[in-house]
Amino acid sequence: MKVIKLTGIKQTIRGFRFSAVPAGIKKAGTDRLDFGLILSDTPAQAAGVTTTNLVFAAPVEITRKRLQSGLCQAVLLNSGNANAYTGDQGKLDALDLTAATAEALRIDPELIVPMSTGVIGNPLPKERMLHGIPDLVKKLDSGTFMDVAKAIMTTDTVPKTVVLDGETGSGPFKMLGMAKGAGMISPDMATMLCVILADMNVRAGFLNECLVEANSASFNCITVDGDTSTNDTLVVMAGGRADALTLGNKSSDCESFCSALKDACMGLARQIVQDGEGATKVIEVRVVGAPSKEKAAQVARKIAESPLVKTAFHGEDPNWGRIICSAGRAGVPFDPGNLDLSIGGVPIVRNGKLVSEDWEMAAHTAMKNREFQVTLDLRSGDGEWSILTTDLSEEYVTINADYRS
Amino acid sequence: MKVIKLTGIKQTIRGFRFSAVPAGIKKAGTDRLDFGLILSDTPAQAAGVTTTNLVFAAPVEITRKRLQSGLCQAVLLNSGNANAYTGDQGKLDALDLTAATAEALRIDPELIVPMSTGVIGNPLPKERMLHGIPDLVKKLDSGTFMDVAKAIMTTDTVPKTVVLDGETGSGPFKMLGMAKGAGMISPDMATMLCVILADMNVRAGFLNECLVEANSASFNCITVDGDTSTNDTLVVMAGGRADALTLGNKSSDCESFCSALKDACMGLARQIVQDGEGATKVIEVRVVGAPSKEKAAQVARKIAESPLVKTAFHGEDPNWGRIICSAGRAGVPFDPGNLDLSIGGVPIVRNGKLVSEDWEMAAHTAMKNREFQVTLDLRSGDGEWSILTTDLSEEYVTINADYRS
Repeated sequence: MKVIKLTGIKQTIRGFRFSAVPAGIKKAGTDRLDFGLILSDTPAQAAGVTTTNLVFAAPVEITRKRLQSGLCQAVLLNSGNANAYTGDQGKLDALDLTAATAEALRIDPELIVPMSTGVIGNPLPKERMLHGIPDLVKKLDSGTFMDVAKAIMTTDTVPKTVVLDGETGSGPFKMLGMAKGAGMISPDMATMLCVILADMNVRAGFLNECLVEANSASFNCITVDGDTSTNDTLVVMAGGRADALTLGNKSSDCESFCSALKDACMGLARQIVQDGEGATKVIEVRVVGAPSKEKAAQVARKIAESPLVKTAFHGEDPNWGRIICSAGRAGVPFDPGNLDLSIGGVPIVRNGKLVSEDWEMAAHTAMKNREFQVTLDLRSGDGEWSILTTDLSEEYVTINADYRS
Repeated sequence: MKVIKLTGIKQTIRGFRFSAVPAGIKKAGTDRLDFGLILSDTPAQAAGVTTTNLVFAAPVEITRKRLQSGLCQAVLLNSGNANAYTGDQGKLDALDLTAATAEALRIDPELIVPMSTGVIGNPLPKERMLHGIPDLVKKLDSGTFMDVAKAIMTTDTVPKTVVLDGETGSGPFKMLGMAKGAGMISPDMATMLCVILADMNVRAGFLNECLVEANSASFNCITVDGDTSTNDTLVVMAGGRADALTLGNKSSDCESFCSALKDACMGLARQIVQDGEGATKVIEVRVVGAPSKEKAAQVARKIAESPLVKTAFHGEDPNWGRIICSAGRAGVPFDPGNLDLSIGGVPIVRNGKLVSEDWEMAAHTAMKNREFQVTLDLRSGDGEWSILTTDLSEEYVTINADYRS
């Protein structure tokens, strides 16, 4: 399956319609899209995963509850306000907004899931949003997938979308996905909103299994700053129209669908890292030879989140000592005198010793690339894991030190 | 007891002599001090704590072993090179250097502990250092405490020293301490070298108990970037001269000494944070009302290490949502709907709700101070803990993205 990044073209998927409007959530009186709607023709099978943060937003709570039915017909999304830590009022606001949307669409409100992203702790500008709903519903005839992808952007500099086509015994299927996220990005369910649509009927239970697996292999393998947000939500909807094909039970068909979902998630996860706040590079930190997969992940995350490692990446400095130092404090037992380390394919440490060849200039040159890999072999087992991370730049600080207003 | 920062004055403590020379470790042919020696007249009682990193430097290994005797007569320190991840050669180098110093001093090499700080992974320039030893020993007659404090600086912008006087039933005592550290600073034994000297005989076992307690309440409560180094070493030496008084057994005397040691450690720890790489502010993150002290520490550290919180500190932005979001991912159970949060003494969240008063401008103003406190009351128990942290500035990135050479 080929993952194609959408770039501004009007992209469609059978069974789903889209719309977005400027509702003045980010800033009143501007024409920046900040309120979006995705609607399927019929209730679609659906599954979702949400933030692991103890503090979660009102829309997350509602989404968790509503997706238990395994069905979803619409997603109501906004940027500019996370509706997090807004107490009972926040929950009431999200319920009111989905109710008003349901009424305008003439569907069951339990079939609408809300998603919000933006500043934590401010009440939603509900009146302005309610006012935007008729327009949002009207624009479903002309709106595009890309409109919604743009409406959920916050510090993102580009909309993040994927499209891919798959083939099963029952026939072909298509998948379309969008995501937002650039900061507060960390494993344990990356910080983001993400919706993936498929035009084939898939049993909700199986959809859920696929999603958990795809999420674990994609969004849980990226980090920008190690912060996990209150609003992370990833929802997949499948089917959505009366004449949709149904995924067969053959294992090859199931694998084909799962694999497509994994590709879609990985495609979006990679775009999130590429667009990480202030990021100029994407680095894959790959740990192999660990006592287990979990231990490999633990070491990879420690390296991928170390400010000293990330600033060295930014300076294109093959400061391998910082990498090994980070690994050493991950709480995973290994023999420091028996490991291999390479940066950008250039071996630097072999068998616990600096290589005798001249590695410095070669590694420095490899780090000039926009993407490169760091590979650490602990030679203590078969466990392996990769985390995609960014460099840490002055720009990251500038973006996040900027006053909220 | 009053902690006084030393500022350039020639400071002395009975029983100890000091010296430092430029040995060309940082850069050959310059006159930057990078090699230092502390010598006590007689073997002093000694205790130490060292890094918790699985990857530890050669001098750390030697120091751990030699301090088991509870005695130490000299400390040989260098900056510019950590002698970490340098394998068997690194250990041999440290042994050779302490042996040559012992010979020149005519003392037992087992009574000398080495401390190194600087870049990881490069062999020590041993020949140049051996060459500097005669000079180092000769200068013991004229060298100062401040010379050594300067010789261990790396990215530090100022030397870090404390002096304090205490009183016991056996008579008065004096304590003198020095430390280096500005980056790779994190709890679990802060990243640094530190030597504290006292002019009173104290049983090594008791000295060790005091040190563990003082370390836990000071250096383990600070963070700059969450990275723990390979070289962290804190050594305390007590006595050191033939006519030194001996600390009595009265509990008030013991408390007096322990309290002085704690004050000395805290004084140095605070200076390390104040001089944190790129830091423009020192923030005390105080968590109270946690289920236990350990849980309070876990939440405080998560907040104190969050890049999003630290950049908001830098921007003097009372972005309280980021603070609560960080707390929520610390893995500690609490009720988000029942907490209190204040920044710089300005209440923002009370009982899980934003206060009705106008807090924004007051909190922003409080954050303009060079030091302020963030207090989070989880209202879930009696556990409390504080961590001192810095803001995260563009300057931190610039310092650390700079190529090593």
